[in-house]
Amino acid sequence: MIRFNNDYNHGAHPRILEALASTNGESYGGYGIDPWCERAAEEIGKYLDCPEAAVHFLVGGTQANFTVIASALKPFQAVVCADSGHIHVHETGAVEHTGHKILALPGKDGKITAKQIAGEAEKYRVSGVREHIVQPKMVYISFSTEYGTIYSKGELEEISRVCKEYGLYLFVDGARLGYGLGSCRADVTLKDLARLTDVFYIGGTKCGALFGEAVVIVNPLLQEDFRSCMKQNGAMLAKGWLLGLQFYELFRDGLYFEITRKADEYAMRIKKAFEERGIPSYVESFTNQQFVVVENSVAEKLAEKYVFEYEEKIDENHCCIRFCTSWSIKAEEVDALVRDILAL
Amino acid sequence: MIRFNNDYNHGAHPRILEALASTNGESYGGYGIDPWCERAAEEIGKYLDCPEAAVHFLVGGTQANFTVIASALKPFQAVVCADSGHIHVHETGAVEHTGHKILALPGKDGKITAKQIAGEAEKYRVSGVREHIVQPKMVYISFSTEYGTIYSKGELEEISRVCKEYGLYLFVDGARLGYGLGSCRADVTLKDLARLTDVFYIGGTKCGALFGEAVVIVNPLLQEDFRSCMKQNGAMLAKGWLLGLQFYELFRDGLYFEITRKADEYAMRIKKAFEERGIPSYVESFTNQQFVVVENSVAEKLAEKYVFEYEEKIDENHCCIRFCTSWSIKAEEVDALVRDILAL
Amino acid sequence: MIRFNNDYNHGAHPRILEALASTNGESYGGYGIDPWCERAAEEIGKYLDCPEAAVHFLVGGTQANFTVIASALKPFQAVVCADSGHIHVHETGAVEHTGHKILALPGKDGKITAKQIAGEAEKYRVSGVREHIVQPKMVYISFSTEYGTIYSKGELEEISRVCKEYGLYLFVDGARLGYGLGSCRADVTLKDLARLTDVFYIGGTKCGALFGEAVVIVNPLLQEDFRSCMKQNGAMLAKGWLLGLQFYELFRDGLYFEITRKADEYAMRIKKAFEERGIPSYVESFTNQQFVVVENSVAEKLAEKYVFEYEEKIDENHCCIRFCTSWSIKAEEVDALVRDILAL
Amino acid sequence: MIRFNNDYNHGAHPRILEALASTNGESYGGYGIDPWCERAAEEIGKYLDCPEAAVHFLVGGTQANFTVIASALKPFQAVVCADSGHIHVHETGAVEHTGHKILALPGKDGKITAKQIAGEAEKYRVSGVREHIVQPKMVYISFSTEYGTIYSKGELEEISRVCKEYGLYLFVDGARLGYGLGSCRADVTLKDLARLTDVFYIGGTKCGALFGEAVVIVNPLLQEDFRSCMKQNGAMLAKGWLLGLQFYELFRDGLYFEITRKADEYAMRIKKAFEERGIPSYVESFTNQQFVVVENSVAEKLAEKYVFEYEEKIDENHCCIRFCTSWSIKAEEVDALVRDILAL
Repeated sequence: MIRFNNDYNHGAHPRILEALASTNGESYGGYGIDPWCERAAEEIGKYLDCPEAAVHFLVGGTQANFTVIASALKPFQAVVCADSGHIHVHETGAVEHTGHKILALPGKDGKITAKQIAGEAEKYRVSGVREHIVQPKMVYISFSTEYGTIYSKGELEEISRVCKEYGLYLFVDGARLGYGLGSCRADVTLKDLARLTDVFYIGGTKCGALFGEAVVIVNPLLQEDFRSCMKQNGAMLAKGWLLGLQFYELFRDGLYFEITRKADEYAMRIKKAFEERGIPSYVESFTNQQFVVVENSVAEKLAEKYVFEYEEKIDENHCCIRFCTSWSIKAEEVDALVRDILAL
Repeated sequence: MIRFNNDYNHGAHPRILEALASTNGESYGGYGIDPWCERAAEEIGKYLDCPEAAVHFLVGGTQANFTVIASALKPFQAVVCADSGHIHVHETGAVEHTGHKILALPGKDGKITAKQIAGEAEKYRVSGVREHIVQPKMVYISFSTEYGTIYSKGELEEISRVCKEYGLYLFVDGARLGYGLGSCRADVTLKDLARLTDVFYIGGTKCGALFGEAVVIVNPLLQEDFRSCMKQNGAMLAKGWLLGLQFYELFRDGLYFEITRKADEYAMRIKKAFEERGIPSYVESFTNQQFVVVENSVAEKLAEKYVFEYEEKIDENHCCIRFCTSWSIKAEEVDALVRDILAL
Repeated sequence: MIRFNNDYNHGAHPRILEALASTNGESYGGYGIDPWCERAAEEIGKYLDCPEAAVHFLVGGTQANFTVIASALKPFQAVVCADSGHIHVHETGAVEHTGHKILALPGKDGKITAKQIAGEAEKYRVSGVREHIVQPKMVYISFSTEYGTIYSKGELEEISRVCKEYGLYLFVDGARLGYGLGSCRADVTLKDLARLTDVFYIGGTKCGALFGEAVVIVNPLLQEDFRSCMKQNGAMLAKGWLLGLQFYELFRDGLYFEITRKADEYAMRIKKAFEERGIPSYVESFTNQQFVVVENSVAEKLAEKYVFEYEEKIDENHCCIRFCTSWSIKAEEVDALVRDILAL
Repeated sequence: MIRFNNDYNHGAHPRILEALASTNGESYGGYGIDPWCERAAEEIGKYLDCPEAAVHFLVGGTQANFTVIASALKPFQAVVCADSGHIHVHETGAVEHTGHKILALPGKDGKITAKQIAGEAEKYRVSGVREHIVQPKMVYISFSTEYGTIYSKGELEEISRVCKEYGLYLFVDGARLGYGLGSCRADVTLKDLARLTDVFYIGGTKCGALFGEAVVIVNPLLQEDFRSCMKQNGAMLAKGWLLGLQFYELFRDGLYFEITRKADEYAMRIKKAFEERGIPSYVESFTNQQFVVVENSVAEKLAEKYVFEYEEKIDENHCCIRFCTSWSIKAEEVDALVRDILAL
């Protein structure tokens, strides 16, 4: 069986393991105060053009999401996101568990618009009963989204502008940032994210690392005491250098971008194969996640050889399934899938 | 100006004040351990046919809502309600503040159906990733709803059945319970609520009391330690007898039902006047809240003499406004309004 | 039986009930936006010499405590108090329920010192592992304390100075403020509190009102959005004018000070009687709470006629008991007790 | 410089890295549902004699602590621990952040007694105002403690008995469990912990793993839905097999016990050296942490060659310092230190 089921089903890029092995005899200071975290922040910083940004390394995505959100908001403040947002539907209420309401807006292909955000913020601004409703204070978007879609630079600029206008923080969940930035359709760079957001994170878990997410806090207001919030939320790894080391390795020569771009290219080959075969996309994605609508029999056929994700029933005869490439997929695995799709 | 703006704009029914005055020289035990709370629970109990029910007196509706919900749910459990539910839109995220997610279902006229609830519960039951999503564990409905509508006994029975089937607690917000039960269309009684729900409350603040809500906990699982939760949430009044006394007065001879039924009758006169004048309802309500869609000029005209609530803009020329009767409205005030509506 | 068991066992000063009765026919805006809250704030303001202070009316003490604390602190910040502090021992963990740790310092007669506070703050300041410990950010003291003791103006000034030096908010729980200020030993005024604290409250529940606490927020940083926090915590009474009206009545001509001073004088008579009889104080209090150590037989004797609070066993033959006067105690009740003490 | 500063300053035992490398090409299911987690649980199970125990793998100690505690307690319930307990003093209020109060008892050398626990529980049981105080419901102890001390089997049995008597859960923080069990003075085994506690964890981070703690839930009441709580608290690693694999490697042939016992033996050599040199212990520890009281000049002298932890000032001329061995310390490093101590 060849696994296209997700982008976190393998350990780490071999260079990560080598780096861990080669430093295993060394000893370091704990809790993220060590040379590797410093160097990793420095390497990441080279892509940001934002000297005041602070970089922190956390273990996982859910943890990064609620730690960032809870550290930024006052008790009566809420976070706005798409109704398909990971924090809204797949994190067991982690954000609400920190006490904050999520205001979910109807998303289109996993995305929300500047106009929707402005509408929500305006509703609060003009409300005569503000004390009775939560205050939208942060916007959470994903890049790429749950559906593999990405925001254009123009869209991000517009969202950023609206956020500034209404005093909202903009937070980008980058669990799949590598695949988003590596897309053939992407016109956004890390520099743009540093310019347009208040805080975002660079996903490692799904993009070549064993585990880890690098939270980049651009807005100085959100930087203060973030480490206290990390510790309080169990998000401060004792051996923090394990995270720094991984991100150093991924960023020192651009490995991060290389391996995720490659995965996107593989995904494009799969996308093209489905298209050639006349199998429609469920949503048009140019990143590593491909959602297609197939006949049930086709899904069964493919399942004989491939592991992929069943998303939902479309009608009696059709279903939506997801094929996911990643840094660990091999060319021959993609070759095989493409061949088999075309032969359907 | 005559106030039809809401049902909590006056102090209390005169008998309440008399009761407070006549006992003012007495001294009582604190925190709800006193003869008046006992007697009030006894009087309420006469309507319940449910000897195992526990009755607690809290100060306000938001407080009652989050105290009941937070005391019943485990951290990863959620409460299901209509998207117009008070806890979802008008309580500044109080429920999320206690750590729990609200799963909002699209309501129709403020109501949700047994089928919708079953759908949400079933989604969890069959989910392959339960740990990643919150568990629906309580259903919150209002009687009457934000739009003045009420559930029929049949609807409640169906909802109750689904809740039992899926192991959900059924919680009825009765901030306007008097007006709900008093409706000419109501076929539900307190006895039905005690039979069909796990917990509900009998609103006092909007139904003749100075303040106070009587929480009736039917399900023994939810009874244990409720007082600890009350105290922790600031919901235990030091002079608890003030609450008991009011509810005793309201229930000892049915005053509660009499004054709310009267208010409903007044509302029906207003409803009829609007209908006669050809002014459409925004939602068909047979309780004390009447929502109508009027031309802006009509709203302006009425506003010269009456205070009512502006709900929302319908189009350039029309808006939705609410007229609310209550236990404190006088016949001559209603007469005047009816006259003025018919003369529009 | 004559009740000296606490200061919240009676309804309200007759003038409060008269005020409620005389306005019962009127209608008002909800949620504390009404003329009575405005007037009450104005009357209280006359005692403060602090035009920028904001006054909010809440229902009870526990509610006031956690609402103030939770609205002021960030998630990793803690509140410092005496180990006998009400929030630490008698509120069912309400403060922790909002997510904040209490740092309890060993109190002396219910009080803590500026030096202790500085020590705690200094410990954080010099810590090399700040992210691993909570940040003391607020100091909570009571006036009068759980033991009836009060801080001198000099002590408060010293505490205030230390708080400013370390960037701590100073919060005074004034559930028994009237009895504190009314003490023959008090050299502190409301003006001093407004000058020396960031936020404090004026207790109504125990000092003549039916219920209610007036929270005075001096520090503008703590004023913003306080009403949102009130609503979220169930601390915004629908009929807010009921609170405003009571405080207006208590403050418009100094009734508040008059009735609490009287209660203190009664307490001094009781104190003197015990002293004359050679019965030692458990703690030296010059306010309305008197703690004495008596032989068990004496306690039993007194219990035949009086209700008082049993505090704790001292040894096999002795116990500590509390006699509490209040605004509602009558001279003849005190006369009787004094007589009976002297006759022991 | 030779590092004796703590037991988490090195990566992992070489076998751990080898295991990670050898499986890096494989793909696995996510979130702890994989063969390695299964096998690890099985290997651990062999030491437990408790087939009903559930084993979950979390990333770190603070995370394990608050996830276990928050999942077990109702909102008004509290956890009892020593005043030196890690959750009380070194976790930035993580437990309170989940809403629960910690009841800290004065510890002796980091330990509390069954009698103290019974005292606290009895206080609640006999309280006449239970609703006003938190309910002690869980006891948290560490094995070994912050001071390197351990509980004897007799002490644990006594504590367990008291917990059962009062309905308290017993939770053992085993961040340093290996060093505790490996002590020459230990008479406790994993089997005993499974028999006497409700839940405990086996520390990996400090005992040979890269990171990870194995939470063993013995009490079925605490097992249900634990994975939902893990996810909600950010404690469910996407690549869960990384944890399972490590614990499998540590337990499949007893490596865990071997390397921690060795570290304890090294610590005993250091202890003996200090004793021979006449330098007193701060607390008598037979595990990997050694606390001694030295003259400041001695501390300075040792600091030229060794990294250790400065604990606190004892008097003008003396301080307490900690030397910590671990699985990664080498014999020659201990030799050197012993030599230098004896030569002081």
